[in-house]
Amino acid sequence: MKKEFVVIGLGRFGGSIVHELIRLGADVMAIDAHSERVDEYAKIATQAAVADTTDEEVIKSLGIRNFEHVIVAIGENIQASILTTLILKELGVPNVTVKAQNDYHAKVLGRIGADQIIHPERDMGIRIANNLMSSNVLDYLELSDEHSIMEIKANDRIAGYSIKDLDIRANYGINIVGIKRDDSIIISPTADEKILLGDILLVIGAVVDINRFVKKAMG
Amino acid sequence: MKKEFVVIGLGRFGGSIVHELIRLGADVMAIDAHSERVDEYAKIATQAAVADTTDEEVIKSLGIRNFEHVIVAIGENIQASILTTLILKELGVPNVTVKAQNDYHAKVLGRIGADQIIHPERDMGIRIANNLMSSNVLDYLELSDEHSIMEIKANDRIAGYSIKDLDIRANYGINIVGIKRDDSIIISPTADEKILLGDILLVIGAVVDINRFVKKAMG
Ligand SMILES: Nc1ncnc2c1ncn2[C@@H]1O[C@H](COP(=O)(O)OP(=O)(O)OP(=O)(O)O)[C@@H](O)[C@H]1O
Ligand SMILES: Nc1ncnc2c1ncn2[C@@H]1O[C@H](COP(=O)(O)OP(=O)(O)OP(=O)(O)O)[C@@H](O)[C@H]1O
Ligand SMILES: [Ca+2]
Ligand SMILES: [Ca+2]
Ligand SMILES: [Ca+2]
Ligand SMILES: [Ca+2]
Repeated sequence: MKKEFVVIGLGRFGGSIVHELIRLGADVMAIDAHSERVDEYAKIATQAAVADTTDEEVIKSLGIRNFEHVIVAIGENIQASILTTLILKELGVPNVTVKAQNDYHAKVLGRIGADQIIHPERDMGIRIANNLMSSNVLDYLELSDEHSIMEIKANDRIAGYSIKDLDIRANYGINIVGIKRDDSIIISPTADEKILLGDILLVIGAVVDINRFVKKAMG
Repeated sequence: MKKEFVVIGLGRFGGSIVHELIRLGADVMAIDAHSERVDEYAKIATQAAVADTTDEEVIKSLGIRNFEHVIVAIGENIQASILTTLILKELGVPNVTVKAQNDYHAKVLGRIGADQIIHPERDMGIRIANNLMSSNVLDYLELSDEHSIMEIKANDRIAGYSIKDLDIRANYGINIVGIKRDDSIIISPTADEKILLGDILLVIGAVVDINRFVKKAMG
């Protein structure tokens, strides 16, 4: 059975969700109040409709309440976002994911039962800032407040040494769980694996420990 | 020496970058054409200025060309974003990171020398769509077109078994590199580690293999 979603609001964020869900093989109904936006997505979405979703009758007539998951990606018009979410939850849609514009908006959405609240610009800002601060840290996955998996670009200070030589686990309490080299990935490299210049090390551990490794071993 | 940045445009994205850079210990000059926006960030930023950055004299007088890195987070006004970027590159700022609104915008930014072009809403849309498609996959770090590290929530199908019992590496060619349990993280668990209900497994491997594991072992 194909997964089915409704995406309301086809701005950059909502539009990108439609594209990617379709690419991943889902069925998607794409909705926007403006026909030009809808025209753009009618070609790729499974279904598309021009509709103002602050009107309960409109939502009912589109059969949206039969979907398991609706994403509300209405932006600037916070009132429309809140009202749409309220109607969806009142009609019993089990999963409603909503884009929030600010803290006030997020708070109201939480109160009226939004199941997942997302701050796309804020989250990307945090990601970018982290990338900007550490030029050797290319990307990361936050695991907890303290722990992350980080992509670290090996420089000439550590190139030529094996993982054993650097004794990373003993010295820093962190672990190399993978190495990106050219177009391939070495999964869970052994301690004998030699690090090459330009390797991207996938390191798991406490952020302070990883940063200590980057500063002391690579700085 | 502290890292120094200029952030131009204090919308959600730019504002979030200012917050996070400051939190990470950088010096930040925050600039926007609207004084209310600047007032909001004057308290937290190292410096703040109300300025229209499409005016070359204004950029010169603020000393922006002495910074190593400038982030242009002007949104809707694409022309202002392009003109600002052009002036910054002409004045010799070595690193200019710019938010793009669409493909046309990104193309022009590339031509005029922007060093890094970012589509925050689009990238977050892609992340969210991936999260939505696989309810057991909570988050992920894309390593290549084929490989990722994924956070997978252990369900009752695999809880109670050790990593050895499931023989994940042999059966799926993937590896568990960490386990999030309550507030702690087990880094590189041994094969004897028993998986508990609600554990979040950090799995590295080809996405098709990880999905096969999620479907076959957990489905
Ligand atoms: N009542 C409504 N019903 C349906 N669609 C709506 C409604 N109100 C707004 N929209 C649509 O939501 C879409 C997204 O809104 P908007 O462009 O303001 O968001 P944004 O925050 O700028 O988005 P992004 O940053 O993702 O581009 C718009 O295409 C708009 O037409
Ligand atoms: N010429 C300019 N000089 C300085 N700041 C500018 C200029 N033009 C626009 N800005 C500022 O850029 C900021 C971000 O722009 P805008 O709100 O349109 O972007 P956005 O795409 O909606 O952002 P976000 O989605 O991150 O909230 C605004 O606060 C605006 O005042
Ligand atoms: Ca908009
Ligand atoms: Ca805006
Ligand atoms: Ca936006
Ligand atoms: Ca990446």
